Amino acid sequence: MADAARHDRSSRQLKLLSQALASGRLGPVRRLVNTLSPAEIGHLLESMPPGKREIVWGLVDPEDDGEVLLHVGDEVREALIADMDTDELVAAVEDLDIDDLADLVEDLPDQVIDELLSAMDRENRERLEQVLSYPEDTAGRLMNPDVVTVRADVTVDVVLRYLRLRGELPEHTDHLFVVSRRHQYLGRLSLAGLLTNEPSRPINELIDDEQPAISVETPADEVAHQFSDRDWISAPVVDDNNILLGRITIDDVVDIIREQAEHQVLSAAGLDEEEDLFSPVRRAARRRAIWLGINLATAFLASWVIGLFEATLEQVVALAVLMPIVASMGGIAGTQTLTLMVRGLALGQVGTGNTRALLTKELSVGALNGLIWAIVVGTLASLWFSDPTIGLVIAAAMAINLIVAALSGVAIPLLLRRLAIDPALAGGVVLTTVTDVIGFLAFLGLGTVLLLK
Amino acid sequence: MADAARHDRSSRQLKLLSQALASGRLGPVRRLVNTLSPAEIGHLLESMPPGKREIVWGLVDPEDDGEVLLHVGDEVREALIADMDTDELVAAVEDLDIDDLADLVEDLPDQVIDELLSAMDRENRERLEQVLSYPEDTAGRLMNPDVVTVRADVTVDVVLRYLRLRGELPEHTDHLFVVSRRHQYLGRLSLAGLLTNEPSRPINELIDDEQPAISVETPADEVAHQFSDRDWISAPVVDDNNILLGRITIDDVVDIIREQAEHQVLSAAGLDEEEDLFSPVRRAARRRAIWLGINLATAFLASWVIGLFEATLEQVVALAVLMPIVASMGGIAGTQTLTLMVRGLALGQVGTGNTRALLTKELSVGALNGLIWAIVVGTLASLWFSDPTIGLVIAAAMAINLIVAALSGVAIPLLLRRLAIDPALAGGVVLTTVTDVIGFLAFLGLGTVLLLK
Repeated sequence: MADAARHDRSSRQLKLLSQALASGRLGPVRRLVNTLSPAEIGHLLESMPPGKREIVWGLVDPEDDGEVLLHVGDEVREALIADMDTDELVAAVEDLDIDDLADLVEDLPDQVIDELLSAMDRENRERLEQVLSYPEDTAGRLMNPDVVTVRADVTVDVVLRYLRLRGELPEHTDHLFVVSRRHQYLGRLSLAGLLTNEPSRPINELIDDEQPAISVETPADEVAHQFSDRDWISAPVVDDNNILLGRITIDDVVDIIREQAEHQVLSAAGLDEEEDLFSPVRRAARRRAIWLGINLATAFLASWVIGLFEATLEQVVALAVLMPIVASMGGIAGTQTLTLMVRGLALGQVGTGNTRALLTKELSVGALNGLIWAIVVGTLASLWFSDPTIGLVIAAAMAINLIVAALSGVAIPLLLRRLAIDPALAGGVVLTTVTDVIGFLAFLGLGTVLLLK
Repeated sequence: MADAARHDRSSRQLKLLSQALASGRLGPVRRLVNTLSPAEIGHLLESMPPGKREIVWGLVDPEDDGEVLLHVGDEVREALIADMDTDELVAAVEDLDIDDLADLVEDLPDQVIDELLSAMDRENRERLEQVLSYPEDTAGRLMNPDVVTVRADVTVDVVLRYLRLRGELPEHTDHLFVVSRRHQYLGRLSLAGLLTNEPSRPINELIDDEQPAISVETPADEVAHQFSDRDWISAPVVDDNNILLGRITIDDVVDIIREQAEHQVLSAAGLDEEEDLFSPVRRAARRRAIWLGINLATAFLASWVIGLFEATLEQVVALAVLMPIVASMGGIAGTQTLTLMVRGLALGQVGTGNTRALLTKELSVGALNGLIWAIVVGTLASLWFSDPTIGLVIAAAMAINLIVAALSGVAIPLLLRRLAIDPALAGGVVLTTVTDVIGFLAFLGLGTVLLLK
């Protein structure tokens, strides 16, 4: 398996740390923790049950505290912050980049925010307020206002001298941005270009104006797709008047891509991507109870359908024995189609341009598999109960349910999307309700007609 | 929803293209297609049914052909390659980077590979052969041998003059690598450092030797995690003797991260991440039939368990009506635990260090929810069938099954992992088999004991 190595390394760290903690000597734990990067420490804290987590958190180098907070899920972050006093928190976050600070600020206690704002210089405070003025999950919230700009009417040599005077560049600077006198975005200038061209070369000959700037209102998701479609490391962010506001870098985009992908996995089970692996039992139970409640309602619906056929079931008990097969096969086949559709929708690969072609394909696959499995299941059921009619009933119900499953797998996510309901979250519940109901209805209905004396 | 905008943009492209195709005039289609980046064209081709896909593929600027082939899934790639003749293919791929070429080469017909190798100069041919000599999904396969190296005993000025002579740098060069006389990796030198330091500064004062080099045998997965844990843009790859072999860049890593995440989503439904949205019907049906077959076997197992209680069901038909509820609730609750575990395993957050704590937590959540839903379902069932004993039976079965579900959700993925079976693929099937069997057994068993006259 591809992720075995990762598993080995991380779980080795986890094991070492658990052993060190169990020994009760905190020196080795501290040394072990502080060889790791903030992201790795965050990862490790997420993997630990609350008691141990607090001990380890207390041993992290205070300099790393802010970065570690950035690298854990919302729920764990909340717990870690609750563990710190105001001074510690202010010290932990005051040196963060503006975009990172904007990410954290809503989780901080009011008193910390007040102290933080009063400790900041005016320029940074205004920048933070600007970033916070944009809605969450937009480019404005992801950008860092700390950008290096140059003017088009100078030479490479002037820029080189300016950079030497300026000193360090912000992290992940692969391009400088060329702006007009009014700070309008004109194009970008790669560091590689600065290094490989003669000092006398004018900047305006080196500007790359092919890369469109990102509008500050662009949704985070769209930003992520533009980055990965165009292999960007950083990209400029502008307002409606093309004024350069900041810069988004690939490291933030990688986080978005991970979160997007986790969303489909976790929502399908009614879970939240910010959930702590070690949520307190009551909180976890309460949250999952909601999902179980929704599913219970659909299970009762299916039972009610079965209840309509009580008289049939009393006479032909074989129907009770076989009925879960039809429902379950419908659910499995439908889930395959649904999974492809939900992924296609998230990637923008499914739309009005191809729904008909997709439906045709999925219905054909459903019909073909319906036919095959109808024959197999029909034969097996006939032999089991020595009754060809029961084979016929289950075969017909199976074929019907697999076709309905294909149809539902395509239609339900499209319908949910139109109703502005997240198909990744609700698709599975709605689909299995349909395949259960139709499965039981077709099987018991046909059984009533064909088998009842 | 976060991905609505993406959906809108991509599906707008798809719709425009479909309309242009329907009009039969290919000029506008060609113009539309060639405003897109190769990744976007790949995306669009993946979204199109075969007939249209071939037309659009024929209209893509031949210069982009190679890059487009890199950006589509294996199955679509195969179809596109089948559509090209040898000359077209050679022209399309000969200008690709070595790492990208290595990615494609196994899908190319032998004749194309032969022509390609004979058209390449010796250095590039040797580089390609070297990259191909490493196993798939390792750092060696991901790396590009095209790196810019400098020596430690020179000054910034010497490097600047060398770079101006050299001209263009490879894409995504954020660091140069400092090597010894024997080409051993010593550290990296950022472009930003070159630009912000005085020309007289010696390179050995600027070397960053904190970033460990990646061993050529590191699994791709581990490479991806190192990149995202440490916010790298590029990283050096070395052999066992610390000789610098090449460089891995973030764009390839982003692709791995996407694939990893898709793997859990798609495997859970028995699907392959390389599957074409528009696979030919027979091929898709055959592949899915395998998954349906496995699930059918487990469904028959559940039916067999029910069959053991035929005599009970004949007397108490209410049991037949209610039995799917117990099984389905167990499946839902178990899937929640399983999903968290599979994700935790993939991220390396679950291991021997914390399994016991996780098991305790999940069992507590299962017991608490078991209690709650036992009371709810027990009460509803008592009222429905006006029989408190049936309420007691379903309540007890529900509590048992939710606890078994929690236990299975934790244990099954760990067990599968130990057996070297992918938990993302097999976890769901095994889990629902357990919750179905235990659900039916507990419910019908208790029913037989308590309800049979």
